[in-house]
Amino acid sequence: MRFSHADLKEYCRRVILAHGVYEEAAETVADMLLDAELTGVSSHGVSRLAIYMERVDKGLVSKDSCPRILRESPSAVVIDAANSLGAVGAKFAMETCIRKARETGCCFAAVNNSNHFGAAAYYTRMAARENMIGFCCTNLTAKIAPYGAAEPFMGTDPISVAVPSDDCPVVLDMTPSVVALGKLILAQKLGKEIPVGWALDQEGRPTTDPAAGRAGSLIPIGGPKGSGLALIVEVLCGILTGAGTATHLHDLYKFDAPQGVGHFLGAIDVSAFMDVEAFRAGVSAMRKEIKDLRRAEGFSEVLLPGERSARSAAGKAAEGIEVPELVCAELAALGKPFGLTLRT
Amino acid sequence: MRFSHADLKEYCRRVILAHGVYEEAAETVADMLLDAELTGVSSHGVSRLAIYMERVDKGLVSKDSCPRILRESPSAVVIDAANSLGAVGAKFAMETCIRKARETGCCFAAVNNSNHFGAAAYYTRMAARENMIGFCCTNLTAKIAPYGAAEPFMGTDPISVAVPSDDCPVVLDMTPSVVALGKLILAQKLGKEIPVGWALDQEGRPTTDPAAGRAGSLIPIGGPKGSGLALIVEVLCGILTGAGTATHLHDLYKFDAPQGVGHFLGAIDVSAFMDVEAFRAGVSAMRKEIKDLRRAEGFSEVLLPGERSARSAAGKAAEGIEVPELVCAELAALGKPFGLTLRT
Repeated sequence: MRFSHADLKEYCRRVILAHGVYEEAAETVADMLLDAELTGVSSHGVSRLAIYMERVDKGLVSKDSCPRILRESPSAVVIDAANSLGAVGAKFAMETCIRKARETGCCFAAVNNSNHFGAAAYYTRMAARENMIGFCCTNLTAKIAPYGAAEPFMGTDPISVAVPSDDCPVVLDMTPSVVALGKLILAQKLGKEIPVGWALDQEGRPTTDPAAGRAGSLIPIGGPKGSGLALIVEVLCGILTGAGTATHLHDLYKFDAPQGVGHFLGAIDVSAFMDVEAFRAGVSAMRKEIKDLRRAEGFSEVLLPGERSARSAAGKAAEGIEVPELVCAELAALGKPFGLTLRT
Repeated sequence: MRFSHADLKEYCRRVILAHGVYEEAAETVADMLLDAELTGVSSHGVSRLAIYMERVDKGLVSKDSCPRILRESPSAVVIDAANSLGAVGAKFAMETCIRKARETGCCFAAVNNSNHFGAAAYYTRMAARENMIGFCCTNLTAKIAPYGAAEPFMGTDPISVAVPSDDCPVVLDMTPSVVALGKLILAQKLGKEIPVGWALDQEGRPTTDPAAGRAGSLIPIGGPKGSGLALIVEVLCGILTGAGTATHLHDLYKFDAPQGVGHFLGAIDVSAFMDVEAFRAGVSAMRKEIKDLRRAEGFSEVLLPGERSARSAAGKAAEGIEVPELVCAELAALGKPFGLTLRT
């Protein structure tokens, strides 16, 4: 089924409200989910609404608490997300960073007591829209083994950086593993082998069996390099926030306890370093230089980080968002008890 | 030949002074080179003294100019390195960040008009010693092709992050390419093939020929992920500093112009976020958890970033630094015209 962005967002917002979440939080979460749909990251889009609401219904995520600042200096802030829906604390943190960076040049926020926040690029693009360089990462339950280990220790922790430009912002949003866990789940469903280099089995041996990989661990990019990057994210999100590193967190799909996730976000104000127009023009000039490079074998175009997302968003804003039947059924079921009807 | 750390540093310092560089700069560069030797990164150690001095002698690096602050806000600073030896501007930048971060919680510095600064970890460890999380990157002449391109655009730009702890600090220092260019140079010298996945030839095809790889480009870790990371470093070091991105820089080993390199450094003060003792204990506890993980096939130990360097430094401080004959001859030649003698 195909929906307009506005209609689908409004439906999600009403569903979240109906589940007892307060107005501003419902708007934030609906906007974040639809932004993921627009930018082509549907794995973090409306298909997540069901699990978010299930956790709210079970009392594992608070429906009424607001994030609050625990500690503050001119360019640093610690935020207790108060177990609100992940997007609520992360958005509040980035808004705070942007406001303070405008005064001092940059600001970073450590967020604890939070939950799954969707796609990290949602928050870094907030900064880019304000002519700042946005930085965001979060930790998640452990899936990646440190280089040399046979057990997971770090989450598939996303790292996002967004950079303003005169045309399409440069938006990096990556996990430090070679592939996301979803690729192993899909291969297992399809009965296919996975390539060597994606995962290790429980003994720390390379495996082509997706089930063995799921029971084992994901391999970081570049061996010790991706492993080190993931470890730094764990330090920032798990230790500096007080939230705890990945192995101490709770899974989004298990109902034993609040997730207790930590985020680390920041904004660097371009205007503290140079003329904003010159910076934006410089990034656009770099983009053009890269687009003009000779292409590698098998590539019809060199894509910069964020370019695919921007195109997806332009297309879907015009033509609507296609949602698979299964997800539509889920969405409809979430609204039905409250008399809400999902309409295309 | 084997030298004590103090003797070798003093010899380097005297050589730099003899070449007309001022006292404080000579001390900084000698300390940085010896730190690289101690931490086992001899590719960035005393073997670089000859090229540094050659550039000074040719007037391509200034022997007497001091870095100066061009623009300053509470948590951001822009520094003109004034074409001084790279370590001089980078050290000044990190000292400035540390001083300002103590007031505001964090500070970042954009440095332009600089030169090759050695190992990035030298600067991030300065922050870690002050109970701050240090961040440092620099750009270099273009060697890495963006994902999908057949020509280099980004340098093998190092990214370093250092984290204080109760025992060994966590120190990441990585380039976003699968291997450093040095590995291709070595393979070519030895007449060996390189594995697929290290480099592309000039047409952007995977190659096993080190010469073709050197003429082509290095492959980033994780495809679009490492490519994106390198691109962000180019934005920070090349655009936000005003220095220019990699393809606009000049090579350390060519004598056509000053290098014009940019650096981007920062310090995040742990005490702005939480109790420093608790943070340091938390990082050490994480280290212990990781050391206790089951090991992957073929590994006798799980090493954290920075652990090998710390062990090397402890060993070499006690037993001395071994320098290959060829490098000793180079070092001796640098001092000879000034009546300086290299002694073990």
